[in-house]
Amino acid sequence: MYSDRIRLASLQSKITSAAEAASLIKDGMVVGMSGFTRAGEAKAVPMALAERGKSEPVHITLVTGASLGNDLDKMLTESGVLARRMPFQADPTLRKAINAGKVMFTDQHLSDTMEAMRSGQLRKPEVTIVEAVAITEEGHIVPSTSVGNSANLVQYAEKVIVEINLTHRLNLEGAHDIYIPSPRPDRTPVPLLSPEQRIGVPAIPCDPAKIAAIVICEIPDSPSNVLPPDDETQAIANHLIDFFKKEVAEGRLTNSLMPLQVGIGTIANAVTCGLIDSPFTDIVQYSEVLQDSTFALMDAGKLKFASGCSMTLSEEVGAKVYGNFEKYKDKVVLRPQEISNHPELVRRLGIIGINTALEFDIYGNVNSTHVGGTHMMNGIGGSGDFARNAHIAVFVTKSIAKGGSISSVVPMVSHVDHTEHDVDVLVTEQGLADLRGLAPRERARVIIDNCVHPDYRAALNEYFDKACAKGGHTPHVIGEALSWHVNLAERGHMLAK
Amino acid sequence: MYSDRIRLASLQSKITSAAEAASLIKDGMVVGMSGFTRAGEAKAVPMALAERGKSEPVHITLVTGASLGNDLDKMLTESGVLARRMPFQADPTLRKAINAGKVMFTDQHLSDTMEAMRSGQLRKPEVTIVEAVAITEEGHIVPSTSVGNSANLVQYAEKVIVEINLTHRLNLEGAHDIYIPSPRPDRTPVPLLSPEQRIGVPAIPCDPAKIAAIVICEIPDSPSNVLPPDDETQAIANHLIDFFKKEVAEGRLTNSLMPLQVGIGTIANAVTCGLIDSPFTDIVQYSEVLQDSTFALMDAGKLKFASGCSMTLSEEVGAKVYGNFEKYKDKVVLRPQEISNHPELVRRLGIIGINTALEFDIYGNVNSTHVGGTHMMNGIGGSGDFARNAHIAVFVTKSIAKGGSISSVVPMVSHVDHTEHDVDVLVTEQGLADLRGLAPRERARVIIDNCVHPDYRAALNEYFDKACAKGGHTPHVIGEALSWHVNLAERGHMLAK
Repeated sequence: MYSDRIRLASLQSKITSAAEAASLIKDGMVVGMSGFTRAGEAKAVPMALAERGKSEPVHITLVTGASLGNDLDKMLTESGVLARRMPFQADPTLRKAINAGKVMFTDQHLSDTMEAMRSGQLRKPEVTIVEAVAITEEGHIVPSTSVGNSANLVQYAEKVIVEINLTHRLNLEGAHDIYIPSPRPDRTPVPLLSPEQRIGVPAIPCDPAKIAAIVICEIPDSPSNVLPPDDETQAIANHLIDFFKKEVAEGRLTNSLMPLQVGIGTIANAVTCGLIDSPFTDIVQYSEVLQDSTFALMDAGKLKFASGCSMTLSEEVGAKVYGNFEKYKDKVVLRPQEISNHPELVRRLGIIGINTALEFDIYGNVNSTHVGGTHMMNGIGGSGDFARNAHIAVFVTKSIAKGGSISSVVPMVSHVDHTEHDVDVLVTEQGLADLRGLAPRERARVIIDNCVHPDYRAALNEYFDKACAKGGHTPHVIGEALSWHVNLAERGHMLAK
Repeated sequence: MYSDRIRLASLQSKITSAAEAASLIKDGMVVGMSGFTRAGEAKAVPMALAERGKSEPVHITLVTGASLGNDLDKMLTESGVLARRMPFQADPTLRKAINAGKVMFTDQHLSDTMEAMRSGQLRKPEVTIVEAVAITEEGHIVPSTSVGNSANLVQYAEKVIVEINLTHRLNLEGAHDIYIPSPRPDRTPVPLLSPEQRIGVPAIPCDPAKIAAIVICEIPDSPSNVLPPDDETQAIANHLIDFFKKEVAEGRLTNSLMPLQVGIGTIANAVTCGLIDSPFTDIVQYSEVLQDSTFALMDAGKLKFASGCSMTLSEEVGAKVYGNFEKYKDKVVLRPQEISNHPELVRRLGIIGINTALEFDIYGNVNSTHVGGTHMMNGIGGSGDFARNAHIAVFVTKSIAKGGSISSVVPMVSHVDHTEHDVDVLVTEQGLADLRGLAPRERARVIIDNCVHPDYRAALNEYFDKACAKGGHTPHVIGEALSWHVNLAERGHMLAK
């Protein structure tokens, strides 16, 4: 049965039901799981585990690549299975539980989690559940639409459960490049010299004796929920393209730019789409998530190669890409997130990192995660991995939110994920602020003049003038620095008196 | 003349006065200069430049490795020569000018500046002034007590002025290892695999035609101004040593720990001294500044090798070390700061990074730079280079300051240099908080219980309880989050009503 999918005959006997496989997971365990941004997560077993959690106390620490599809984080939260979750999530129900202090969430740089686990600073999983398109003759695991942390979590687990997902075609095989850094202190350089290079093996090495159960699954990935570009995201894209043109004109970039990383989400996706009508050619992506825009850019002949750790596509683009994957396979590679996001590689390759800010302040500090300074949205994700070592670190956002009651540019951010040291360029639909080499007072001038919505410009100028009168390298009126957030919370508008 | 110091005979004709050499520097120029933490800065020429600045308008951008000795930043500030300064400083007069908005200060991660300059994102220097112990037969420059950014600044400059400093003995030659990463996009891995390894050349390669002037100087380096350990710094050291012992017992560290980075300053120096009486052996440093404690640890037979980018010693230790440098030379190496602080290497080698915090908050965010959230102290320095990619990122501080009117642990830091993602362990004389793998609410509990001064514990507990009642992943009472800083500014004590 499924001999094209389970090619090591001795493993055929491991096929079992999702419920049976889920019974390997005990209360108190650390569980590893595949899945990155709604792509390639195990599905049937966590669903069975959520079901079991309704009638039996099972509390686990769940470690994945990033966020999951198929409402898995919702189900696992509702049935009380999630005691602790890392390193990223994007589920409204789980988010609510995290913000209520019911689920402990460890928000991490996505390149960091496996480093901490390898060195024993995070507990290793008793069980890892990994989605696959196939198991090879050697018992090695061919991942599906994401690699994420799967290879490491398989390596570090005592037992492995494999979900063979028949909705993924076998043509995905060969798209992956599995490389795991050696332990310290004897680590060698990650040998990657260009985004197109392969440095590993096409399947996750796994001792077949560790494979404790195999489950056949026919639940598809959830499609991407990214919104199409609108006038404002198009304006952001245009400002950024004008900036790139200027960099090319001044000899700091070539016409194929530098390898692009584009964060997940509507704005970043729109920025990539904007490159279709740009003069740039032979672009390469060295990114985290390959989105619809990756393939739009490829189809337009602009993008020649894309490296990522997952593919998260809409239904329409998914049908086209996976239906003709032979056409794309030599132009994409999926790597472990430790490699797609590795600081060593981001610095070596000279990535242009484009990520979304929730808010930023007049000095260029960025909040990517905390609404109102307190409530977790999703997590920092890979934004820090890229911004810190990028050739150019760009953050994008619309200048206002909630119909204008929120300014995305504030006197002081209510939570810092990226300090001004790591932020080179800020873009809103209003314009672009190039902060490179500037001191804080100069940064404030450029940000206020270029990025702020007109409704908030006068108020920010007033704050900045008042702050400068008090002095300092980074002038603030400390007693008023967070007053816009207080106004919003208490009176529903940042400028309410 | 000085044929042992200037071995390329054709360069003898370049010997000139400091004033003459300084005349090569024109108004509006970017000037590169050697110097890192009071070690190895050019001296005579900047002094002559400061003198000239008194009678003639000369405004420059000064780019160094880090801070300078001999009151150079003071003199250059007072004579109005400094228009812009990067990437670090530690001078009271310059600090005042920066905080008054009179000198534009670009505070940068110390591994970043040369990357930005190499790619043309920071303007390259017209003139670089570099201190040397000698110029080789090839015209290459042998640095003195620091390498810092000197090698890069020589490479990127149009003209080079060399100060041969006779107060440094020739026995320093051979202590340096000069390696500069190749430009992107064709960069190869930095080939360093262990702290002891040499990957470069012993002198700074330089086209002799670029050497526009040579000045003979006899002004010594300023001695280190680090204070000796006291009861509180000793307590901090003891807590950290106990933590390391536990890590060894649990198999996460060996008895020689991992390569140690220790930030400049009194507390970090005391922590290193504390290792003399520890059970650890065959310790290696992969650090920025080699301080008195480095050599104390070496003399005690505990430290087998130290890699850094400068040596900043007290008068007493300097006399001993430089007077017997043959004894130490095979146990130390000085590298460019781009290499001593390189994220690629910090991650590969698995550094334990120990740096000083000005204040930290109950969630583990660290302020290293801004007094009261607005006034620059020195700069972020290398702390971010190390903390982000460290095996274990440690920040240390005394729990109170100014006789108790300031708590170093606050509800929310008034400025963020290191986000909670990058902070593993916090230590005060009160105790140690191990934050690894914890969610923010758990971090708060551990920090309040272990690090806070008893005078502030009740108030922080009260704040935390009130914040938790409002909810959130990182609970805060936003309107009160910075109230301790407001109290201090307005009433002289953080808990003043």
